[in-house]
Amino acid sequence: MNFRVVFNIIGKVLCVVAVFMLPALIISLFMRERAAAVGFAVSVGVTALAGVGLALLKPKRSDIFAREGLITVGLAWIFVSLLGALPFLISGAIPNYIDCVFETVSGFTTTGATILGDVECLPRGILYWRSFTHWLGGMGVLVFLLILNPMADKNSGEAMHLLRAESPGIKASKLVPRMRDSAGILYRIYIFMTVLEAVLLLAGGMPLFDTVCLTFGTAGTGGFGVLNDSVASYSPYCQWVITVFMLLFGVNFNVYFLLLIRKFKKALKNEELITFALIVLASIVIISINISRYFSGLGETVRAAAFQVASIISTTGFTTVDFNLWPELSRTILVALMFCGACAGSTGGGAKVIRIIISFKAARRSIYKTMHPNSVRIVHVDGERIDDATVSAVGAYMLAYIILFTAAVLLVSLDGMSFETNFTAVAACLNNIGPGLGGVGAVENYSAFSWFSKIVLALSMLIGRLEVYPILLLFTPSVWRKIQR
Amino acid sequence: MNFRVVFNIIGKVLCVVAVFMLPALIISLFMRERAAAVGFAVSVGVTALAGVGLALLKPKRSDIFAREGLITVGLAWIFVSLLGALPFLISGAIPNYIDCVFETVSGFTTTGATILGDVECLPRGILYWRSFTHWLGGMGVLVFLLILNPMADKNSGEAMHLLRAESPGIKASKLVPRMRDSAGILYRIYIFMTVLEAVLLLAGGMPLFDTVCLTFGTAGTGGFGVLNDSVASYSPYCQWVITVFMLLFGVNFNVYFLLLIRKFKKALKNEELITFALIVLASIVIISINISRYFSGLGETVRAAAFQVASIISTTGFTTVDFNLWPELSRTILVALMFCGACAGSTGGGAKVIRIIISFKAARRSIYKTMHPNSVRIVHVDGERIDDATVSAVGAYMLAYIILFTAAVLLVSLDGMSFETNFTAVAACLNNIGPGLGGVGAVENYSAFSWFSKIVLALSMLIGRLEVYPILLLFTPSVWRKIQR
Repeated sequence: MNFRVVFNIIGKVLCVVAVFMLPALIISLFMRERAAAVGFAVSVGVTALAGVGLALLKPKRSDIFAREGLITVGLAWIFVSLLGALPFLISGAIPNYIDCVFETVSGFTTTGATILGDVECLPRGILYWRSFTHWLGGMGVLVFLLILNPMADKNSGEAMHLLRAESPGIKASKLVPRMRDSAGILYRIYIFMTVLEAVLLLAGGMPLFDTVCLTFGTAGTGGFGVLNDSVASYSPYCQWVITVFMLLFGVNFNVYFLLLIRKFKKALKNEELITFALIVLASIVIISINISRYFSGLGETVRAAAFQVASIISTTGFTTVDFNLWPELSRTILVALMFCGACAGSTGGGAKVIRIIISFKAARRSIYKTMHPNSVRIVHVDGERIDDATVSAVGAYMLAYIILFTAAVLLVSLDGMSFETNFTAVAACLNNIGPGLGGVGAVENYSAFSWFSKIVLALSMLIGRLEVYPILLLFTPSVWRKIQR
Repeated sequence: MNFRVVFNIIGKVLCVVAVFMLPALIISLFMRERAAAVGFAVSVGVTALAGVGLALLKPKRSDIFAREGLITVGLAWIFVSLLGALPFLISGAIPNYIDCVFETVSGFTTTGATILGDVECLPRGILYWRSFTHWLGGMGVLVFLLILNPMADKNSGEAMHLLRAESPGIKASKLVPRMRDSAGILYRIYIFMTVLEAVLLLAGGMPLFDTVCLTFGTAGTGGFGVLNDSVASYSPYCQWVITVFMLLFGVNFNVYFLLLIRKFKKALKNEELITFALIVLASIVIISINISRYFSGLGETVRAAAFQVASIISTTGFTTVDFNLWPELSRTILVALMFCGACAGSTGGGAKVIRIIISFKAARRSIYKTMHPNSVRIVHVDGERIDDATVSAVGAYMLAYIILFTAAVLLVSLDGMSFETNFTAVAACLNNIGPGLGGVGAVENYSAFSWFSKIVLALSMLIGRLEVYPILLLFTPSVWRKIQR
């Protein structure tokens, strides 16, 4: 294991994060929020110091392999979370460091689960930083680093391993031959869509500060808001804009790239996109029928159903109504959508639609093979052959996901909350959503859990965001034995 | 599709079932239970008539393939359930036919989920039949047929397909070259252990009728009792005997065969057996600590923990205490054990320990492959290489299992019961256990569900007992199109 290069990259990541803390510092100064300003000033200093210190660790060889890529991403996200939590602690916004880390992990992983019951009392700088972590975590901080880093040109394989380890999906989205260009295109699409949403929300009369924070939350499919009732008190127009953009940010960015290069047919015939759209539509229709008696008109009913479905399947976690009070069918559909998640290559979490598709096809093939034991049948997606290794990998991923989910529910159940609360809390954290049902429902928060459960849930968020392996590897003894050697 | 042979075999199965109804008829006559006697007399007649009628359908060719084997088993179990439900209906013990079918499916699949709140008021003949369905369904009615049927000698491949379709596990337990002998050995071990348990219970002072019924329930890992409080009011000695035998019937019968032929080392080094034992032990220890404050002494605590753990992991479903009132950790462990289930090749249900082992190893291999993309790594169980096709099949099976589980929970949630109730009701039915948590907890029953949910749950039981494919194939249009041609 080439651990010098690992820490060198982590150092650069921390420098990026320190720079990204500066706007929050400026907002705090501008708003005369003394405690927050001190918090950010100290945090910028500490983070920059740590970053520069690690970045000075010059590697002898700059080559990294899959293993180093995974470890780098896993460690970088933990470092970023531990240091990104400092502003909350130093400003006094959240008195307990574990709570600060929980909130920060929740931010970077775009989960949006909070331990805060009242967010309206927080300083503006803190609220800005809290929402900005969503935006940065959504596309990935290492992917951002690739744009800045000329290394990505020289050593494309190296960059590939980082991009692959941080990007969700079954294969990394290498849009163009040069990795640096790929990362740049992704971020340009991301920034364009973010600005577009902000403009539309401002046009709807949303205050500037709310617009910035909510747009960050939508773009990263995060879910932190700036009001205690999340998005409930904004106008129907704004709710619809957010609904549409939550879904748009849940789509594979490859589709947008295909649109950019005018391959419209290929973009719109994407099997994952079509499945995603069908699941969304079906869920909205069924839930609308199921909840119609709770609302006064069709428009209001469909808006509530569409917003909540978009919010859950894109794994954003904004809410406009308390779906915890909905009939059991609608609640159960939402729980199923939590595990489904958004498309691969989007900023959303969950198992990803493409894995559900491949799982379905693999299960169907298995039925066919039981009937015709000597048959050979290939799984196809988008007309392309999916090789057996990929199908196996998807199967193993899903099994690992379920094993980790079960383990987390068991550990969290030590707190003695209800089965529904534990089950949906872990589901909401592992799939990077935010709110669950019962004790972690739309109007509740995660403060009632013990520090132990908060750590388990924070790890679940990281496991979900980084898709299992980077975090799991950190707990694999053989990886560390290799470092010692 | 050779559907003449399918119905011919189903006819023979029905004849076997009709014969097995006779003891219940005799008990009813002996106990002067008029309604029950009429019920059994009519049911024997109808079942025998249907059986002989179908058996007269002589097939032109007697060869069957994997497809016919699966369809035969799937259809046979549905026919047996529909006709086996008649005594309940005609005797008036259960007034509603859907409830009768639910109870019968629950019996044959060894689930033990009941819609009856009061079983003590039932006639003895009915109680006997209810428990006997567990015993017959535990080892399998088609496996039984193979012993009687000389066809199994002539056409071993044919018999193999039936045995494979009805027996749980990743490969059928072909103990000796001739299938008829294999089936005979399995049933002889089964009968021996059943008699042994009965003798031990009688020695503990349990009444003869209770002994017979509870032994049937234990042997088939079913769970129907004859008292309203299940096993709670029997002596600690009897509870321990049942605990031990629930676990013994949850072990792969291959292990007993190995012991019979004096391959002790190979039997006891069985990886599935060791894992099963470790899971049981660990669960008993953790739950004992967790529930200790609810009981007066260590003996009572361990007995309650051991009984409930053995009952759930063997998928029997007897209870001695209301574990629904236990702390959340213990409840969650029990829910996890529901999905784990017993060993393959036992009478127990669930996903089976061997599939959990292979899933773990496949997930671990996948982590390794992520680190070392070009590596080749083989999954081993019991020192033997598990080929990739088997690993894929296990993965696909687990995915199909989860997809069906989710679908069933969604459908059942239409009734509007709580998430915990729906989730654990489907878990308890799909895994052939019986009681769940909440509204279907140890002291509750399934009567509150709608007829639609009862059908969904009954199908879940069949899907669980027959391991997905035989039932799923019945819903595959292509299978029926082939019959028409």
